[in-house]
Amino acid sequence: MVLRLSTLFLRTLREDPADAEVASHRLLLRAGYIRRAAPGIYSWLPLGLKVLARVEAVVREEMEAIGAQELHFPALLPKEPYEATNRWTEYGDGIFRLQDRKGADYLLAPTHEEMFTLLVKDLYTSYKDLPVSLFQIQTKYRDEARPRAGLLRGREFIMKDSYSFDIDDEGLEASYQLHRGAYLRIFERLGLEVVPVTATAGAMGGSKSEEFLHPTPIGEDTFVRSEGGYTANVEAVTTVVPDAIDFTGAPPAEVRDTPDTPTIETLVAHANGAVPREDRGWTAADTLKNVVLAAVLPTGEREIVVVGVPGDRSVDLKRIEATIAGHLGTGGEVAVEAANEEDLKKHAGLVKGYIGPGLALDAAVLGAEAATGLLYLVDPRVVSGTAWITGANEHGKHVFGLVAGRDFTWDGTIEAVEVREGDEAPDGSGPLVAARGIEMGHIFQLGRKYAEALGLKVLDRNGKLATVTMGSYGVGVTRAIAALAESNHDDRGIIWPRSVAPADVHIVATGKGTEVFEAAEKLAAELESVGLTVLYDDRPKVSPGVKFGDAELIGVPTIVVVGRGLADGVLEVKDRRSGEAQNVAVGEAVALLRDITAH
Amino acid sequence: MVLRLSTLFLRTLREDPADAEVASHRLLLRAGYIRRAAPGIYSWLPLGLKVLARVEAVVREEMEAIGAQELHFPALLPKEPYEATNRWTEYGDGIFRLQDRKGADYLLAPTHEEMFTLLVKDLYTSYKDLPVSLFQIQTKYRDEARPRAGLLRGREFIMKDSYSFDIDDEGLEASYQLHRGAYLRIFERLGLEVVPVTATAGAMGGSKSEEFLHPTPIGEDTFVRSEGGYTANVEAVTTVVPDAIDFTGAPPAEVRDTPDTPTIETLVAHANGAVPREDRGWTAADTLKNVVLAAVLPTGEREIVVVGVPGDRSVDLKRIEATIAGHLGTGGEVAVEAANEEDLKKHAGLVKGYIGPGLALDAAVLGAEAATGLLYLVDPRVVSGTAWITGANEHGKHVFGLVAGRDFTWDGTIEAVEVREGDEAPDGSGPLVAARGIEMGHIFQLGRKYAEALGLKVLDRNGKLATVTMGSYGVGVTRAIAALAESNHDDRGIIWPRSVAPADVHIVATGKGTEVFEAAEKLAAELESVGLTVLYDDRPKVSPGVKFGDAELIGVPTIVVVGRGLADGVLEVKDRRSGEAQNVAVGEAVALLRDITAH
Repeated sequence: MVLRLSTLFLRTLREDPADAEVASHRLLLRAGYIRRAAPGIYSWLPLGLKVLARVEAVVREEMEAIGAQELHFPALLPKEPYEATNRWTEYGDGIFRLQDRKGADYLLAPTHEEMFTLLVKDLYTSYKDLPVSLFQIQTKYRDEARPRAGLLRGREFIMKDSYSFDIDDEGLEASYQLHRGAYLRIFERLGLEVVPVTATAGAMGGSKSEEFLHPTPIGEDTFVRSEGGYTANVEAVTTVVPDAIDFTGAPPAEVRDTPDTPTIETLVAHANGAVPREDRGWTAADTLKNVVLAAVLPTGEREIVVVGVPGDRSVDLKRIEATIAGHLGTGGEVAVEAANEEDLKKHAGLVKGYIGPGLALDAAVLGAEAATGLLYLVDPRVVSGTAWITGANEHGKHVFGLVAGRDFTWDGTIEAVEVREGDEAPDGSGPLVAARGIEMGHIFQLGRKYAEALGLKVLDRNGKLATVTMGSYGVGVTRAIAALAESNHDDRGIIWPRSVAPADVHIVATGKGTEVFEAAEKLAAELESVGLTVLYDDRPKVSPGVKFGDAELIGVPTIVVVGRGLADGVLEVKDRRSGEAQNVAVGEAVALLRDITAH
Repeated sequence: MVLRLSTLFLRTLREDPADAEVASHRLLLRAGYIRRAAPGIYSWLPLGLKVLARVEAVVREEMEAIGAQELHFPALLPKEPYEATNRWTEYGDGIFRLQDRKGADYLLAPTHEEMFTLLVKDLYTSYKDLPVSLFQIQTKYRDEARPRAGLLRGREFIMKDSYSFDIDDEGLEASYQLHRGAYLRIFERLGLEVVPVTATAGAMGGSKSEEFLHPTPIGEDTFVRSEGGYTANVEAVTTVVPDAIDFTGAPPAEVRDTPDTPTIETLVAHANGAVPREDRGWTAADTLKNVVLAAVLPTGEREIVVVGVPGDRSVDLKRIEATIAGHLGTGGEVAVEAANEEDLKKHAGLVKGYIGPGLALDAAVLGAEAATGLLYLVDPRVVSGTAWITGANEHGKHVFGLVAGRDFTWDGTIEAVEVREGDEAPDGSGPLVAARGIEMGHIFQLGRKYAEALGLKVLDRNGKLATVTMGSYGVGVTRAIAALAESNHDDRGIIWPRSVAPADVHIVATGKGTEVFEAAEKLAAELESVGLTVLYDDRPKVSPGVKFGDAELIGVPTIVVVGRGLADGVLEVKDRRSGEAQNVAVGEAVALLRDITAH
């Protein structure tokens, strides 16, 4: 059915909406694809729904091509399965919770691992039933702290989520690779550039994990790549660990008065004045900075952690957040922030500006009373034998030549500092460069975490019960639309890739005579009869300028103008992206447009 | 893509699930279409999703055929628009409410009048933009007090809801009739018998309204029809009102001692003994029964109402609920129940068993102190001039010959008593018979209620602002599937109408040789190549009995058996509904099946 602008439920906006901060948000609003219903919650107008349907069709086809089967779960779910996996607690404020009239607890599902696991448990009993991959294209809910950028970070959004079930690790790896391939094909077909990057599993648990990031300056995720092909999001980058140093014969550590040196800068300046070295000056990299952090657990508790990092590096809280839960022996998303005054007061051993690696600090050097009893983690660069200038846990004092592994120990290492451009890729493939991206997809090898929590076991080849191993895979459907608009626009509007455009051809009839409208009408009917979809601007009293403006704003990739040229038997066929136009004889238009729009 | 039972995510159940009380619920569970996630909340398995997609496609096509445009609203909505129309309060416990992390109130939308109204207000400004009809096929939420019967009354369900916007009443009537026609075609195509019945508008407000009821003994709605073609749900039936009677010269009312007559039965017996009539005996129809009811407002307040009805009729609380809100001057769904002891205690004038039409009762007859100050409504049969035996508001006393309009008045009339088979249809088309049904669709002329509450005005032909008039129309999509299964099954399973079956043909391969599987495989491919959808039971080690049982349970209307006959070049084609089978030459099977399945 031809979409006619004379009746289409649409109103384009000349002005940028005040609250839309990124181009995709502005343009999707202005061109009449979406409307805001609440923060992070959007309505889809008819044109938007067309784009959505096309994106969903691509996703569905590629999922079915790898043998995944579609089903559909409710969004409103009871608490119990999420309690069994502890996610009811771990999600904290990140999910919408509610009670029914009987007071029973429910949530609006942010993702469906539990329900898929329980359903497979309900239906399947044997290794012969496996592998199976199941998916849904479904509305999801997250109570984001800061919904932003229109569809890019919403609170109600559409996601394709799928789950694989295998009897063993090889099977999981195969299912994972099938999904990986399908995801690359999906984004290829959508015309959406993505970089698969190694990721950490975060709140999902599990081991191997990759994100598909769409590179864009407005992305919230930073990732790095090397010329040699290494890619990872910054949370997942691992530091190239230096070799341990033999500390036999290293000079003993020495506590010195370092008045007024509460910062790395002042400390380095003092050191260069008071304890000059012969070979080179002291730099920040010679100091060990001990940062006091508060890990906020899903329960709201604050656990204080001290992290020792080279003084020339800043801590990166997001990188710490990615793995801190493991060190604390807790699950779920742990937020990490700088400790506040109150936190510090509770631990008298922490002398602000002069904090040393307290917990296991050699009592001979600093006195046993300096021990704080807190978890002490270090950056991977702090290897055995490295010597540092660091706090002496006493006001106005630092210790020089404190040797790791000889004078102090630590509870664990953690990726704690920012990744810098120029850092070496962990696989030796060269220095890293940074870029920003939006997460378009994410694939996880969950392993047996959910199956164990929910008791999903099947009989294996030997007739014994074996716990199933799972993968979890997601594509942000609504987010893909925003990313496509973000990376395919100019100052006049959107330029959709052909695979997702709301129509194949946008016909603009200009002029006052009935001939142009009759010719345009005929062309529209002919195009639809050969399987093309048509948006037809048949508005009788609207000026050509407004019509062209709307066409460019809406962004159908091919625009056909039926107007002045008709007297000479020609139409104008315009490419929205390049702006190139050609005159085409009326009789040849259908064949040409079929060629142009083939995808 | 051929659906193969060897890999299809499906497990049929031999036993009826314990908690499934109606056939459709049992069979949809047993045949692997749905699974329960929580009370009234279901997951759709792959086969179920196929049926759902087919039903949605029919609905979508017929809505687009009347020019309605599809869009999609969120399910999670802010409180404010629903407050503007007072539905936030009126829905009471009937909706799911929640708060986001900032404490803002949200609901899971039960229906979307407000949002559509606001969207049209946002986009449109002139009568020239109208009429417009908009629809969505969307997940809805209602916190039903008693979710039941599987998909028949769920708490998360899919509905097609549409809304029409017109500048004047004629336009609304036209939009309403367009929808009415579309609904009849939808149910016709789905193979679902419906009876359109006159309905009351209930909580939706507005005037004209019809329900499309599917007649079934398990229906929750009672409706009536006459031979002459009158149909209405019992809430909407209006009583044939008798003419008023001239009471000039009627004997005066008389209070009598009627000890131990707290019921109509004992009262009539007493009257026939103590005050015998010459012409005929007293019957219950001569008495006026005053029933004390509590109307429970959406706010939880209890308002006491007295309703006077002929003693031979029982009150019908649902019929009273349908219109009581208007009498109370409140909005929303008001529940009505018998008054409890506590209610009665608050009104000393109400003497249980001897209650009279208190409020305006002639003080000369009963004394002014008997007045209760409560709202007093009467059945339409209580017309001016009718004389009654009724309570005297004093223990052990009744009044005889109390004449309506002379001795007492009332605050309004209300349809308060049960509709009985044999009652006259209000349009004179004969006596009524009763039947039960399920509401499959509902169409409303809302009028200007929502547009007024939300300020939806457009410029009319004269350049003046005019309030838009609206219609609201719903089809229960998931419920339609349950109703179809309910009315299309036998003791072996479901028998889907062709238009909604999960596949056109179910091929069963039986035998141990590879030939049958090769032949079945080839047939499946050929059928799909001519556009038919195929469910193929290719399970190698499953007995023919189990395969036939599953085929009959699943309910694809045409079953093809590829088995023993293959040696003679024939297949068996079975009609699931009639059970008739015919042998067909292999080479003729595709053509025959194409014919059979054409729909």
